[in-house]
Amino acid sequence: MEVTRSNFRESLPTISSAISKASFLAIDGEFTGLQKGVNLHAFDTPNERYQKLRQGSMDFLLMQFGLCAFEYEATTKRHIIRAFNFYLFPKPFSRQAPDVCFSCQSSSIDFLVSQGFDFNKLFREGIPYLTPAEEQKSRDALESKYNQLDMMSSPAFTSPTGADTAVAKGPIEIPSEHKQYVEDICKQVEELTAEGNTSQTLELKPTSAFQRKLVYQTLKLKFHAGLHLETKTNNNRQRYIVISKVKNAEDQKQKEESRKAAEMEELENAVGFSKVIRMISQSGKLVVGHNMMLDVLHVLHQFSCPLPESYEDFKSLTRCVFPRLLDTKLMSSTHPFKDWIINTTLGDLRKLLENKPFEKPVVESAEGFPAYTTDNEQLHEAGYDAFITGLCFIGMSKYLGTFQSPKKEHIPPSSPLIEPFLNKLFMFRVQDIPYMNLAGPDLQPSRDHVFHLSFPKEWKTSDISQLFAPFGNVYIGWLDDNSAFVSLYKKDEADRVLQNITTGDTFSVVAYKDFIERMQKSSSR
Amino acid sequence: MEVTRSNFRESLPTISSAISKASFLAIDGEFTGLQKGVNLHAFDTPNERYQKLRQGSMDFLLMQFGLCAFEYEATTKRHIIRAFNFYLFPKPFSRQAPDVCFSCQSSSIDFLVSQGFDFNKLFREGIPYLTPAEEQKSRDALESKYNQLDMMSSPAFTSPTGADTAVAKGPIEIPSEHKQYVEDICKQVEELTAEGNTSQTLELKPTSAFQRKLVYQTLKLKFHAGLHLETKTNNNRQRYIVISKVKNAEDQKQKEESRKAAEMEELENAVGFSKVIRMISQSGKLVVGHNMMLDVLHVLHQFSCPLPESYEDFKSLTRCVFPRLLDTKLMSSTHPFKDWIINTTLGDLRKLLENKPFEKPVVESAEGFPAYTTDNEQLHEAGYDAFITGLCFIGMSKYLGTFQSPKKEHIPPSSPLIEPFLNKLFMFRVQDIPYMNLAGPDLQPSRDHVFHLSFPKEWKTSDISQLFAPFGNVYIGWLDDNSAFVSLYKKDEADRVLQNITTGDTFSVVAYKDFIERMQKSSSR
Ligand SMILES: Nc1nc2c(ncn2[C@@H]2O[C@H](COP(=O)(O)OP(=O)(O)O)[C@@H](O)[C@H]2O)c(=O)[nH]1
Ligand SMILES: Nc1nc2c(ncn2[C@@H]2O[C@H](COP(=O)(O)OP(=O)(O)O)[C@@H](O)[C@H]2O)c(=O)[nH]1
Repeated sequence: MEVTRSNFRESLPTISSAISKASFLAIDGEFTGLQKGVNLHAFDTPNERYQKLRQGSMDFLLMQFGLCAFEYEATTKRHIIRAFNFYLFPKPFSRQAPDVCFSCQSSSIDFLVSQGFDFNKLFREGIPYLTPAEEQKSRDALESKYNQLDMMSSPAFTSPTGADTAVAKGPIEIPSEHKQYVEDICKQVEELTAEGNTSQTLELKPTSAFQRKLVYQTLKLKFHAGLHLETKTNNNRQRYIVISKVKNAEDQKQKEESRKAAEMEELENAVGFSKVIRMISQSGKLVVGHNMMLDVLHVLHQFSCPLPESYEDFKSLTRCVFPRLLDTKLMSSTHPFKDWIINTTLGDLRKLLENKPFEKPVVESAEGFPAYTTDNEQLHEAGYDAFITGLCFIGMSKYLGTFQSPKKEHIPPSSPLIEPFLNKLFMFRVQDIPYMNLAGPDLQPSRDHVFHLSFPKEWKTSDISQLFAPFGNVYIGWLDDNSAFVSLYKKDEADRVLQNITTGDTFSVVAYKDFIERMQKSSSR
Repeated sequence: MEVTRSNFRESLPTISSAISKASFLAIDGEFTGLQKGVNLHAFDTPNERYQKLRQGSMDFLLMQFGLCAFEYEATTKRHIIRAFNFYLFPKPFSRQAPDVCFSCQSSSIDFLVSQGFDFNKLFREGIPYLTPAEEQKSRDALESKYNQLDMMSSPAFTSPTGADTAVAKGPIEIPSEHKQYVEDICKQVEELTAEGNTSQTLELKPTSAFQRKLVYQTLKLKFHAGLHLETKTNNNRQRYIVISKVKNAEDQKQKEESRKAAEMEELENAVGFSKVIRMISQSGKLVVGHNMMLDVLHVLHQFSCPLPESYEDFKSLTRCVFPRLLDTKLMSSTHPFKDWIINTTLGDLRKLLENKPFEKPVVESAEGFPAYTTDNEQLHEAGYDAFITGLCFIGMSKYLGTFQSPKKEHIPPSSPLIEPFLNKLFMFRVQDIPYMNLAGPDLQPSRDHVFHLSFPKEWKTSDISQLFAPFGNVYIGWLDDNSAFVSLYKKDEADRVLQNITTGDTFSVVAYKDFIERMQKSSSR
């Protein structure tokens, strides 16, 4: 089901009920870019990787979110699926709202349009969102505006936005070029309020903010009460003032109340998609994703709070928002799946899991939900990718059941068989640490057989292999044109390296540990 | 005329001829955002303003460029117009090409979609571009790749991209899970090359880069010459290898040559829109824009070179790329137009200039160009805005002619009457310096009557006015919640301010000059 700004509110109950019926949820995100200015490499530690993604990826936008809720129907032994595809865009809902700046990476944008992604729909119809802190700030701003208005003599003279500061800035002199304009308006208002005139409102032509300011201020001084002013926006996004007569204090108050209600509703809408993340979080359900580290980081950053500087704080935050996470990319590259699955790319994984020793899961779209099928692939639409991810999870869970005696048909997400895969995020392209462990300390494999090598930029793999040839095969993790980490396959040769390779004129070799120490020293200086 | 990636090359001659026939050119740009992280204010000096825009605006993309060429036809006393509307997007043309990251501001994007801007067209069909430096770098990369290939024993084994590094990295061991795959390919190639087989080529299925690498390396070792390998990309953007038989050295060479030619053509296309800017620059024609500072900065930054740190270097660069610039916003707010023109917004300016004492210019679209008219406004399409800007320039030039005796019907852009307005960029929302002077030193009005005031964030305009009331009216240039510049209307009261306002517990007043000095000291520390 496609969810945009226009059907978001009406869809909330459907989303909420899909979540609460689900035995588990699968998610997926699409972004406007992946990373910039940072260099992910094969020997990043989990903390280093976190810091790089925090600094290099969070400026991109998570702008499509896929949620697929899987409900297990015990009688038919199949899953009923409810998939949602949300378009997300931080349209500034009012002038106090944050005017978000985000980055785009041209390769990502190019890739997305080639897959048919509709950016016009995104920008026109994307659902807005606010973090809890932003929501609170907006609430406070509204409160303080109301308080200030209440204290003023003529609360009638208010505009829907920007009034708090504006009101208090006090009268300004009317520059000569605007005198005629303001006088004209006064005349029109005199006519409006003249006895016997039955018109109730007067719409002014769109004008500059400055002219509006002059109108507000002049009418306030000249007409005192009896008038209600409001600034509205026309289809061309020009702003204009509507002046309406108020009969009495009651009428006045009612007009105020209805404006407040409208503003509160506007704020409610602005919180937008963050509500869905709160629902997912509060459900406590297992949340499944494929290669989901960036998805988790973006969801936290965009809808909860800016990612904390400290890696440990990040872990606590994640445990708090998503108490049960499972990464199918990690699961599929771990025993007992590892041996069967050569390619853990989402599309290929799904196909592999339909063949022996695995079994294709039986699923059906719930009524009212358009059917996703694996027959026509819609990969890279977040809703579809979430659906495929869920299928992979079911396929792998089922396989775990075959080792039980008696063999189990259905492994629920709460099964202890799933435990070993929980709360571990796949570490993309890292050589010796398969996952980030959200539930405890990270793995710290020895890197005594890893060396940092710097060299002239003319060097190629063959030069490096040759240098290390005496110690057998090596794995080369390029850092840039001038340096790489080199890891020995034969770990017990490690001791011999520094004894035998003497740093030359053109290159230098340092033990991994010493290299890291130097880096830390120079960065803390 | 709309120009996108698909008709760009064929349009170049039309663009070139339009420019060379023109008596002047009008330009306009649309951006993905305006500025972030910097605070433009009413007392920015030209240098400060430049630095703020350089730091806060250049991450946004100039993604639509309007060019309107105005040709004066003396016989009919009218202008023939040729308007172009270019969509620009830095699609990475190959894997060596820069993968540009750019920023978007949600308010700007929201505004553009509300005006009907088509982002799908932009991202799918935008014309790419390279700065001269980027072009040179790509050329060098290709050269060095060819050189390296020439030195190799088996030049047949190359792929269109990434080959240079790849080739030289040397053979890697085939991991066990890929052995079967590679053997299969070898068998197929043996069949292909078997005597009597008349097939000329073999297309492999799309595979991972690693598998392609294994194929390249294995075939090279096993089959030596007689084969040509090329990596192609299918419609799903998956990459696959095509193996073709080569009859002899001649055939081989020809295949190489045609690949080189294709790569050179690809690079030529990648230079893209920068060619149009070079044409404009080389024409030496007058270039007119409305409120054009950001346009000029973006054009230089995106198509010439990153904006220089030094403001003086920026002036030289601008003079070099655009020797004759004219800003209609500045012109219309300068004597003798100032008195007639209350509103210098582009749309309003155009309307004002159709009424007395001005005269509506006579223009006609050239054959083959869709007619822009002022009847249905398409403001905020860059091509249309450039058209309107040109109209405004003609209107104002004509008016200058009426002061001549005898009255002149047509004032050409080379007229000395235009001189006073040349090479000055309007300074948006600056109080006392109307323009940035590209042709010489900037204005340095005295700011002895300006003060820097800091205060608690509860303060409003009225508090400030009250504080300064003893010295008459003031202009307040807000900096943030806690500070503002305050400028006296009665300049001769300046001396009394610091004598009479003693910095209190909650606020402090400093002369403008002292404030700037302190800032410079603290930033150079
Ligand atoms: N004195 C006074 N000025 C107001 C009031 N409301 C708005 N203004 C001013 O009028 C200007 C126009 O306000 P508004 O129409 O809301 O839109 P804006 O300028 O586009 O923010 C604002 O910039 C405010 O400074 C008010 O109640 N009293
Ligand atoms: N040994 C060798 N490897 C190559 C050659 N051309 C490409 N490769 C490798 O094969 C891989 C696949 O190359 P390519 O198909 O161009 O695309 P890519 O990986 O997607 O860059 C590259 O990553 C290179 O490392 C070649 O001529 N010789």
